[in-house]
Amino acid sequence: MKKLLISAALSVAALPLAADEGMWQPHQLPSLKKELKKAGLKLNPNDLTELTEFPMGAIVSLGGCSAAFLSDKGLVATNHHCTYGSIQFNSTAENNLIEKGFLAKELKEELKAAPGSRVYVTEQVDNVTDKVLANIDAQMSGIDRYKAIESKQKQLISECESEEGYRCRVSAFHGGLEYYLIKQMEIKDVRLVYAPAGAIGKYGGDIDNWMWPRHTGDFSFYRAYVSKDGKPVEYSEGNVPYKPKHFLTVNANGVDDGDFVMIAGYPGSTNRYRTSVEVKNQFEWYYPTFRKLVHNYIDIIEKNAPEGSDARVKYASTLASLNNVEKNWGSMIESYGKGDFYHRKVDTENKLNNWLDSDDEMRAKHQSSIDALNQLILVNQKDQETNMKLWAMGRDALSSTAANLYRLALEKQKPDAEREPGYQERDMTRFAEGLKRFNRRWDADVAKALYNFFIAEYATLPMDQRVKSFDTAMGIGETFDAQKFAKTIDSMFEKTKLTDEAVRLAWMDKSVEDFNKSDDPFIQLAVATYEENYQRELENKQRSGQFQQLRPKYMAAMIDFYDHLDKPIYADANSTLRVTYGNVKGYSPKDGIYATPFTTLEGLLAKHTGEEPFNSPEAQNQLIKSKDYGKYLDKNLGSVQVNYLTTVDITGGNSGSSTLNDKAEFVGLVFDGNYESIIGDWDYDANLKRGIHVSSAYMLWVMEHIDNAHNLIEEMKIVR
Amino acid sequence: MKKLLISAALSVAALPLAADEGMWQPHQLPSLKKELKKAGLKLNPNDLTELTEFPMGAIVSLGGCSAAFLSDKGLVATNHHCTYGSIQFNSTAENNLIEKGFLAKELKEELKAAPGSRVYVTEQVDNVTDKVLANIDAQMSGIDRYKAIESKQKQLISECESEEGYRCRVSAFHGGLEYYLIKQMEIKDVRLVYAPAGAIGKYGGDIDNWMWPRHTGDFSFYRAYVSKDGKPVEYSEGNVPYKPKHFLTVNANGVDDGDFVMIAGYPGSTNRYRTSVEVKNQFEWYYPTFRKLVHNYIDIIEKNAPEGSDARVKYASTLASLNNVEKNWGSMIESYGKGDFYHRKVDTENKLNNWLDSDDEMRAKHQSSIDALNQLILVNQKDQETNMKLWAMGRDALSSTAANLYRLALEKQKPDAEREPGYQERDMTRFAEGLKRFNRRWDADVAKALYNFFIAEYATLPMDQRVKSFDTAMGIGETFDAQKFAKTIDSMFEKTKLTDEAVRLAWMDKSVEDFNKSDDPFIQLAVATYEENYQRELENKQRSGQFQQLRPKYMAAMIDFYDHLDKPIYADANSTLRVTYGNVKGYSPKDGIYATPFTTLEGLLAKHTGEEPFNSPEAQNQLIKSKDYGKYLDKNLGSVQVNYLTTVDITGGNSGSSTLNDKAEFVGLVFDGNYESIIGDWDYDANLKRGIHVSSAYMLWVMEHIDNAHNLIEEMKIVR
Repeated sequence: MKKLLISAALSVAALPLAADEGMWQPHQLPSLKKELKKAGLKLNPNDLTELTEFPMGAIVSLGGCSAAFLSDKGLVATNHHCTYGSIQFNSTAENNLIEKGFLAKELKEELKAAPGSRVYVTEQVDNVTDKVLANIDAQMSGIDRYKAIESKQKQLISECESEEGYRCRVSAFHGGLEYYLIKQMEIKDVRLVYAPAGAIGKYGGDIDNWMWPRHTGDFSFYRAYVSKDGKPVEYSEGNVPYKPKHFLTVNANGVDDGDFVMIAGYPGSTNRYRTSVEVKNQFEWYYPTFRKLVHNYIDIIEKNAPEGSDARVKYASTLASLNNVEKNWGSMIESYGKGDFYHRKVDTENKLNNWLDSDDEMRAKHQSSIDALNQLILVNQKDQETNMKLWAMGRDALSSTAANLYRLALEKQKPDAEREPGYQERDMTRFAEGLKRFNRRWDADVAKALYNFFIAEYATLPMDQRVKSFDTAMGIGETFDAQKFAKTIDSMFEKTKLTDEAVRLAWMDKSVEDFNKSDDPFIQLAVATYEENYQRELENKQRSGQFQQLRPKYMAAMIDFYDHLDKPIYADANSTLRVTYGNVKGYSPKDGIYATPFTTLEGLLAKHTGEEPFNSPEAQNQLIKSKDYGKYLDKNLGSVQVNYLTTVDITGGNSGSSTLNDKAEFVGLVFDGNYESIIGDWDYDANLKRGIHVSSAYMLWVMEHIDNAHNLIEEMKIVR
Repeated sequence: MKKLLISAALSVAALPLAADEGMWQPHQLPSLKKELKKAGLKLNPNDLTELTEFPMGAIVSLGGCSAAFLSDKGLVATNHHCTYGSIQFNSTAENNLIEKGFLAKELKEELKAAPGSRVYVTEQVDNVTDKVLANIDAQMSGIDRYKAIESKQKQLISECESEEGYRCRVSAFHGGLEYYLIKQMEIKDVRLVYAPAGAIGKYGGDIDNWMWPRHTGDFSFYRAYVSKDGKPVEYSEGNVPYKPKHFLTVNANGVDDGDFVMIAGYPGSTNRYRTSVEVKNQFEWYYPTFRKLVHNYIDIIEKNAPEGSDARVKYASTLASLNNVEKNWGSMIESYGKGDFYHRKVDTENKLNNWLDSDDEMRAKHQSSIDALNQLILVNQKDQETNMKLWAMGRDALSSTAANLYRLALEKQKPDAEREPGYQERDMTRFAEGLKRFNRRWDADVAKALYNFFIAEYATLPMDQRVKSFDTAMGIGETFDAQKFAKTIDSMFEKTKLTDEAVRLAWMDKSVEDFNKSDDPFIQLAVATYEENYQRELENKQRSGQFQQLRPKYMAAMIDFYDHLDKPIYADANSTLRVTYGNVKGYSPKDGIYATPFTTLEGLLAKHTGEEPFNSPEAQNQLIKSKDYGKYLDKNLGSVQVNYLTTVDITGGNSGSSTLNDKAEFVGLVFDGNYESIIGDWDYDANLKRGIHVSSAYMLWVMEHIDNAHNLIEEMKIVR
């Protein structure tokens, strides 16, 4: 008996769910009542389930970033890096707001945000699983399943969006076990209210990105505007500030070590329930292999767009993204190698198996689905090298633009509701914006070098895995003749008119017939390869449909397993509203070192070199030197808290989320994770995963002492 | 009254002496009774003053390193880097003990240590100030003072060394305010007993040098041997282990956070009482300027001795020293820039001045000496650029060897007692050893390149600051003709026979006449420049004599000042026996980061890459993976402690010192300081200065589990 007890204790200690892990849908929170109370929440978890009540009614999405209302006049707090596009949009060489910062002292001084800026207020989330899966039966082929689901989703979205001013979507949870229809008011008149100087908002820049210790004032304010009668309409001078149903009170003290904190936001994507077969492949094949390709990609851009050249400016944002990918994947490979993620994954699966061994009913219900999923994963992995090289083949911007335009002409032949997502009327604004962006991010010489590189990669595939129509059109034989191909490319680049914005936009309205008789070499290539590429797309959808069938079954098994362990389960992040909670807490990045949970003004000053990104404004330096902490002194720290660490479970998309304390008061904004948490999209390690927040105390100190933003401080409701 | 009290409190808080600061002479410890008790010492401080009693009787010097007896059979524990020369001396390509490590299972397997290895047992320390200064009067010139002191010192040493087997010296304290005669038994038969594999003893190598976190097993064992009748004699097979009067008990548990620790050892040199004028010059002119010269020095060696060449091997140790200097000075410049050392120094001087302002008697006693010292310092600084370039001029190994040999011939014309230190009979073994080492560390091409570089530096001096006889001999004019000089050097290198070891050694016995008629170009240069260089030497001694007069007076003022503050004062380190105490304690290297005081086996394994210097032995890796901690588990850490941090006040020369706990039990060895402590030779910052120790627990774990050194474990007295 004693032995059994010990083994039970061990099993509990090794539960798959780590403390503070979880991106919860608001309706799940009451089932975490005990955990939330233990962590320190003072509110009733039931109050967190109502999206239009306090505090969830104050939480909004900016599309890609999260945010919250901090006043009854539509004042929205988010990260500096979330309003960056709008600051840039309003900057000129003479009036560089990125550098100087910006403060509107009155409403009328507020600036129009960058085109496409939105504030989405989630008003309704409905479980529509039954509707989405209404026409699905187990015998359907993958492609039929895929199409049936897609068709239902489009239908639900279309119905929902019939109310003007709303944007809707249907999101799959647990790989498609559940579907929710999400209805958001789309506020289109968004204005920039306040941003501190770049040397505060981006202090530390790329060097400090993902790093601790951190000293970044990554905060900024928007304001949401609606028509006088409260409707979300396009920008108009006569619009008035939106009056949200709820807003957050600001606690000027920030937080203390150990404090309860909670984040409500829109995390983008995680892979917490992949099988060990997928994990091993991802970290031992996919990331290392793809990372090499990315490395070469970067190399070619850097060689062909030398520093200081116009081309380098055009590829700056591409390079930034690629470098970010290289750093992130490098970090994940490193964490995987150092840690025991794979072993814990296998351990969880062993526990799942042991449980199935002990329960005939559950075995009958789940075993075959689990086996089938792993089988499908293995089949899928067989094609991964081919897929990677086909991906490379499709990289060229001219080829893909031509292909997209031709696809648009084809899709337009169908009724709107039946078109491929991305080619419906609701997508046309974004489609055109993409075509307009082209020249700002494209240089012929760099593009040629990349095309040559990518096609050389592609041409290492055996003939039977290549795109025959492409080979024929481009004159590529079994053995790749790089010189000949380079000449072909040169002549195509010379002939094409697609490098002209007006030409590209004009193609949006042309017919299939126009495409077929075009003499533009890239349009010709798009037409020639369309059918073959489309067949591959269908094959991929067939595969996706198979995953859509098996992944939910696997998740059903996991849910039953967690249920048996008396644990709730959360779905992988999918850009929908989630709540994560935790505590202010440091961590040990390595033996002999502890990252303490706070940074201070003095640490900020110690980093100051005068050179970007460590060029703290002189006014700030002087205030720090004279210990001018004002009302924001943290007595434990003997200074003002700048950034802090917590155990919240966040990922990309959570940027800009307000950090709430035990009473749902605003105590800062989460803006990054630590380096060790990058693998967190796959694995939550309670010892290592930390969110990095800017403290409300530092925000208010900057606003009061540096930027004189008294109008905003007065507008907000501040407590201490 | 209230205001006065506050100001008094502030003044106490800003006392010049920081907690745990101080390298105390053993006789001073009773005056620190309260502080030692507060820190945790359980022994009576009076017991620490008796050099031949426990525990001081167990403490020895290796000359350059410190050590202690750990058994009644003369077993000596010290750092691996302190026995490194002996491990190297016994290594061959086939039997590389540096790599493999070494363990003598029986006495007869022990290996002769490297030539010159010594164990010095301090038996007596006498204050001889009165004797040394007996013939000094205030009116003496600097040079007369210098010579009078030197003559007295030589006389005292000579008397003391009349007892065979002893080595004596007279050391100045407080810049010459006090002199002590130190008598040490010189054990010459030293044998290598045990060294772990280099991958343990040097784990982390140069990369981790001065760094935390640290995971180095920097420990090793010697044994001291004497003749059968207990006399310190040269190596002989018939010698027997020395039976020390006392040895240390080993505590196998290591230490806990906060524990009292104490180090008795031989710290080399510090500059804690330099004036603000000296500090500013040292950190703002001397280190930055000289560091550039060193940087070029390194560059020239690296260019002319390419990696992989024989020449590179010869210059490896020179390069290591130069790189170490560059790193150390770099660290000090960095710390000086970041910290407030200079301001604290000025603050202390202001307090000293305020006190003198308030006390007429003290002002009359000290003010003029303080002013005179600062005056002399300024005069001295005027020559510093010239001195640096003259230093460069004297760098060439052939020139300096010839100069030293000629000087020897000249000195030998005098009675032994009157000769310059370094040229007395007692110095001849070392003199010859230096001549023998020459070829192992010298390459003609590198030496030529360096000579050309250094003389080009020298030749930037105006004519009136140059060595005229040198310029004449080498044909250097007002404008330096580099090509012509290079040719001169080529021809001198071709003609000289000094590159031959036998020739060099033969010159040791030649007469002044032989030198005068030599046709060796470097001997001729030495003869030609001797008189002029000797005159400069006398000028320098004149300056030294002036400092010998003023520095003690300044220190007398400081001592009165500290006395007024009711604080004892310690003398700057001078390679004599000192005791420093403190506690096990981490520190914050920067905002948001805390260095915890312990590292563990798991941290060691996490650093393992398989590539030197992070190539932990496979046996060790396996033991760590299987958590095979044996009796050495630290329950707080959940592992075996490897290295730890303490606040002890140490510097170079303390290496190898045993770390003693509150009962004077052996709990490890100090082997390094943290990066932030490099400036510690000038400034003790209690927040940043830490010693790095290898724990007795890790030592015993390695000995028991990896190296099977059961014979040594049994020989020692171990407690838990």
